[in-house]
Amino acid sequence: MVVGHTIHLRVRYEETDTMQVVHYSKYLVYFEAGRIELLRSLGLVYRELERDGLLIPVVKAVAEYHAPARFDDEIMVRTWISKVGTSSIRFDNEITRLPENELLCAGHTVHVLVDKGGKPIKVPQEIRKRLSRTK
Amino acid sequence: MVVGHTIHLRVRYEETDTMQVVHYSKYLVYFEAGRIELLRSLGLVYRELERDGLLIPVVKAVAEYHAPARFDDEIMVRTWISKVGTSSIRFDNEITRLPENELLCAGHTVHVLVDKGGKPIKVPQEIRKRLSRTK
Amino acid sequence: MVVGHTIHLRVRYEETDTMQVVHYSKYLVYFEAGRIELLRSLGLVYRELERDGLLIPVVKAVAEYHAPARFDDEIMVRTWISKVGTSSIRFDNEITRLPENELLCAGHTVHVLVDKGGKPIKVPQEIRKRLSRTK
Amino acid sequence: MVVGHTIHLRVRYEETDTMQVVHYSKYLVYFEAGRIELLRSLGLVYRELERDGLLIPVVKAVAEYHAPARFDDEIMVRTWISKVGTSSIRFDNEITRLPENELLCAGHTVHVLVDKGGKPIKVPQEIRKRLSRTK
Repeated sequence: MVVGHTIHLRVRYEETDTMQVVHYSKYLVYFEAGRIELLRSLGLVYRELERDGLLIPVVKAVAEYHAPARFDDEIMVRTWISKVGTSSIRFDNEITRLPENELLCAGHTVHVLVDKGGKPIKVPQEIRKRLSRTK
Repeated sequence: MVVGHTIHLRVRYEETDTMQVVHYSKYLVYFEAGRIELLRSLGLVYRELERDGLLIPVVKAVAEYHAPARFDDEIMVRTWISKVGTSSIRFDNEITRLPENELLCAGHTVHVLVDKGGKPIKVPQEIRKRLSRTK
Repeated sequence: MVVGHTIHLRVRYEETDTMQVVHYSKYLVYFEAGRIELLRSLGLVYRELERDGLLIPVVKAVAEYHAPARFDDEIMVRTWISKVGTSSIRFDNEITRLPENELLCAGHTVHVLVDKGGKPIKVPQEIRKRLSRTK
Repeated sequence: MVVGHTIHLRVRYEETDTMQVVHYSKYLVYFEAGRIELLRSLGLVYRELERDGLLIPVVKAVAEYHAPARFDDEIMVRTWISKVGTSSIRFDNEITRLPENELLCAGHTVHVLVDKGGKPIKVPQEIRKRLSRTK
């Protein structure tokens, strides 16, 4: 089974715009919160990875917007790892509104592991194991 | 020739993150600034379109990140219209760093024209003409 | 006793900047989240107040920065109502880092109740009662 | 005469919120853009100061909101230095809407000069001279 994780967020006033819905750029912030917590659930604290000299910048982001989130909505961000390459990771996301679980946004991000100098590095064996752990 | 427009921006401190580069969500904000100014250059003031009951929400966004922008960089956002469908528009973007014109981010967004009730409407003839105007 | 409320937040990557600390503007976003939840705890759902035509825009904001918050820090936002005027409310805030409870930021915001036309209105009796409820 | 500088900005869609006005936290972002450009006009490039190990974090921010800015408004940010202390600087700001020059927001920020370790340092003589240059 796939490695996944779910978080719940409350839409902030600042995240909305003149159309009275969440601005389309903010879903990438929600995706990121989902990734951070998915990694934490696997024993990988992103802050510590960075401290150890391992960065995971994004090289591609895709989002499809199905329905708008609004101020004060409770939303659920589901994140899972769909691919681990030689030095890359792909995370997929789905954001829904609670309690109906209506789909708001689906997307994915692709990341490359790099050292502090920006040079790609292979996914270390210890991390690879955690990323593909069956739940 | 394609309808396009170019704007110049200065990266703000707030747009950067702990990696000391522009946060990946902010490129969607730059894309949007590019779209707004492209439309203005075609005689379409987005604020007035909204006032007249025509909204252009995004239904898909794609961004590929080639190199990071940093605080105080002068960047150029090039925006052009690559497709006008029955009730949709696709904008393409390229962001480069000046003065070398190094590619930082390329992407596109797809939009649907809707009325205030959220119902898709056909691209009005007057707008279609402007969007496909040869420059 | 004063009416107060406490929420816990996790600092997001997007909220930090090149100095590798939370950007100074984001504390106002945290203050706002604190206010919204304080109001909710008093039975006042801000989204519903807005729907009923009662807006509470800010007219003044003050923040003093004592120590920087960093990515992934768990912070606590304490919010309380320090004054209810004829048509104004003052909220005070303190943000600390957990688990040590180290003070990061203290401040306050002053708000005026207005109708949809922007005209100040007196704090309705029912709301005044809730805002000054002893806990 | 006081050292001052003026910049013009266009309000972005992302900077607005459900109240269809600029979110109150964004004025601090505008203040910052004003400071950066004021410093540049004095020959002080903030990015280079940081590179040289001199940081200027904010210790206090105050903003009074007089009238709301809206999407697509052209605004003017006036910034001036009102005080240079032993190791502190105070910047004052006024934001108005063009073309009427209507006052939207007035405020100030207080900063302390620190080294990379966060230790306060005296304002270097060369910088002090520039900050108090008569225009």
